[in-house]
Amino acid sequence: MNLLLLHEADFLADGTARLIGRRLLHARDVLRAASGDSLCIGRLGGKTGTGEILRLSTDELVLRVTLPDDPPPRPAIDLLLALPRPKALRRVLPAVASLGVDRIVLLNAARVEKSYFESKVFDQIADLLEQGLEQARDTRPPEVLVRDRFRPFVEDELETMFPGAQRLLAHPAAAAPLPERRGRALLAVGPEGGWVPFELALLQGRGFVPFTLGPRPLRVEVAVPYALGALSRSSTSP
Amino acid sequence: MNLLLLHEADFLADGTARLIGRRLLHARDVLRAASGDSLCIGRLGGKTGTGEILRLSTDELVLRVTLPDDPPPRPAIDLLLALPRPKALRRVLPAVASLGVDRIVLLNAARVEKSYFESKVFDQIADLLEQGLEQARDTRPPEVLVRDRFRPFVEDELETMFPGAQRLLAHPAAAAPLPERRGRALLAVGPEGGWVPFELALLQGRGFVPFTLGPRPLRVEVAVPYALGALSRSSTSP
Repeated sequence: MNLLLLHEADFLADGTARLIGRRLLHARDVLRAASGDSLCIGRLGGKTGTGEILRLSTDELVLRVTLPDDPPPRPAIDLLLALPRPKALRRVLPAVASLGVDRIVLLNAARVEKSYFESKVFDQIADLLEQGLEQARDTRPPEVLVRDRFRPFVEDELETMFPGAQRLLAHPAAAAPLPERRGRALLAVGPEGGWVPFELALLQGRGFVPFTLGPRPLRVEVAVPYALGALSRSSTSP
Repeated sequence: MNLLLLHEADFLADGTARLIGRRLLHARDVLRAASGDSLCIGRLGGKTGTGEILRLSTDELVLRVTLPDDPPPRPAIDLLLALPRPKALRRVLPAVASLGVDRIVLLNAARVEKSYFESKVFDQIADLLEQGLEQARDTRPPEVLVRDRFRPFVEDELETMFPGAQRLLAHPAAAAPLPERRGRALLAVGPEGGWVPFELALLQGRGFVPFTLGPRPLRVEVAVPYALGALSRSSTSP
């Protein structure tokens, strides 16, 4: 944890913040902080800065809060992700939050197992995203949307939700490499078994350009950071 | 698992291969394979191809083996990685194997906890690498070296082990972006708390060029695929 994330409910009337639970334990036992120390903090959805420790006991951590800084810049990337198995989702959510993705749609597809939509991970989305923010010193969690019907989403929602974004489709069978980046990107990453032809056709019909990340099928928790790393470089070419 | 990896000991005198245990269970219960089906297979360190199922019972899986193909091309990247905490190492090893890294040195550093070198993960390295190979349809595991003394490694071993490689140092405080790729790359990724000044100076003295992956501190299991994705694109610019 490189930043302590404060929620609205943590703020007291006098402008200080009072933390209990996980973040108190972290400050005490991991950071080994003491009264007078300054911690790197951020306000969920807002600015970052420092928290000077006014009191640190077994019961509470009270901070004098100064929040002058903007969180780190964002790469202007959204994700359309075929819902991965719960174990992978649990790893992908902190990762995409740490990488500054703005919005992630967890989408059904023919090769997504229906049981994945019943996963308990859905109750932990906010926590998993906050872990990623605290890692990356960010304060703005990605917006996470869950859509259990592929076609209605692509046909009825996609256009208004992502107008004008460069639509890119990671597809192992594609021949073309990642195209030049231009402006905001919407990156589609399929299920481990790949999109089926109907899905590919529908996405391509909506302007998604297939590209390959290479001949190696990657696990989604590896493919997503790898693709975002590649995207980060694809705008530096002339 | 996208490829069933065969070991030397699996091959019978008549050229067929006999599998038991984990791979038998996978073929039967996950792939739901049956006699006559063909599976994507590879020989550890060797070629890839197909295995036609001659027998599949609760006790054994016997394959007729045809191995005409080369495994996927490799990106010519080696890693110098400050030893991560065991949980992260458990994720990084399959990831780097799936990405085709050739050699990985797990190195001590001032901000690496000594207890990490006692981890039980070290007994599972071969298995973890094979998981990555089976994911990426590769057969060649990275060579993994463990070095618990930073300075003797950098001063006495680095030069002969990695002659001529482009040496790159991911460093959050660096100002320069990833340089143009030229030939084989040796990528150094520090501990979560970063390299200390002495380590940075020693690495820079040996030709490592610091670059930044952006202002966001990333977990090592995210930083490594992200950096490899960026490297994959950094040679496409003129």
